[in-house]
Amino acid sequence: MERTPEHEHLHEQDDRRDRQREASTIEKTLALVGDRWTILLLRAAFRGIRRFDDFCADLGIARPILTARLRKLVDAGLMTKEQYQQHPPRYEYRLTPSAIALSPAIVALVRWGDEHLSTEQPATILVHAPCGTKLQQAFWCATCATTFGPTAIRGIPSGPN
Amino acid sequence: MERTPEHEHLHEQDDRRDRQREASTIEKTLALVGDRWTILLLRAAFRGIRRFDDFCADLGIARPILTARLRKLVDAGLMTKEQYQQHPPRYEYRLTPSAIALSPAIVALVRWGDEHLSTEQPATILVHAPCGTKLQQAFWCATCATTFGPTAIRGIPSGPN
Repeated sequence: MERTPEHEHLHEQDDRRDRQREASTIEKTLALVGDRWTILLLRAAFRGIRRFDDFCADLGIARPILTARLRKLVDAGLMTKEQYQQHPPRYEYRLTPSAIALSPAIVALVRWGDEHLSTEQPATILVHAPCGTKLQQAFWCATCATTFGPTAIRGIPSGPN
Repeated sequence: MERTPEHEHLHEQDDRRDRQREASTIEKTLALVGDRWTILLLRAAFRGIRRFDDFCADLGIARPILTARLRKLVDAGLMTKEQYQQHPPRYEYRLTPSAIALSPAIVALVRWGDEHLSTEQPATILVHAPCGTKLQQAFWCATCATTFGPTAIRGIPSGPN
């Protein structure tokens, strides 16, 4: 069936609405994790750091900035604050599954910057721990058991559910 | 050999320098691609859009903002501006290999926002085009021929070269 101008118009409205929704989600994501201290803090947490003083020492971050960033991450559901000692009370900050799900995005962003923007050589490279092979990121299809690049990605309507 | 306090001090200095370098690279990366219009523009380019008027129509972006963002991406080496028509002169914007290398990071960031921050259901889902399987991202080891999660990543010194 050929598309009438009316169909075309409705289709464009849908597309526009979809872009606006995407823009709004991107804006929320960047507001939450789009600053260097939050990214460095999450990177430290991915390395296993959990305690306030350890974050301070590792990052060389000022205590009020660290307090604010940790609170933001707890409020957003990316970290939980857990008491690990009663006398005196001491807390540690643990990553939630939602924060762990963010790690491929952050690692990809940091690595791209290292390779394409940094003038200095990184002091460390990331490897697959069991074998020492340099880290690669790819899109992975479990059905085809293959990796693939961005040109093999397509968007399809998500349906009623 | 046990570490002396002096060794420990030098080690801490190295670590601190490494974090500062990483912070500076993250800052440059966010300055370049950490705003919603740039991300939406790159996403449109990944879908095959190349011409000024097509970006305008697709994104509903104001022309001066689009002009500024395209210039920034050309200056940063993420896009090239190529003449495709002589009378009148018309140009199109093509992604460089450096921009294409950024696509897994951007797709990962946008998808994470969709799944963890968006209240609305995305209108489209991303799939592997040949088979229609929902997109998954993973770290991939070519040596072990396996995917793996962030806990299996380790940093090692990058050596003299």
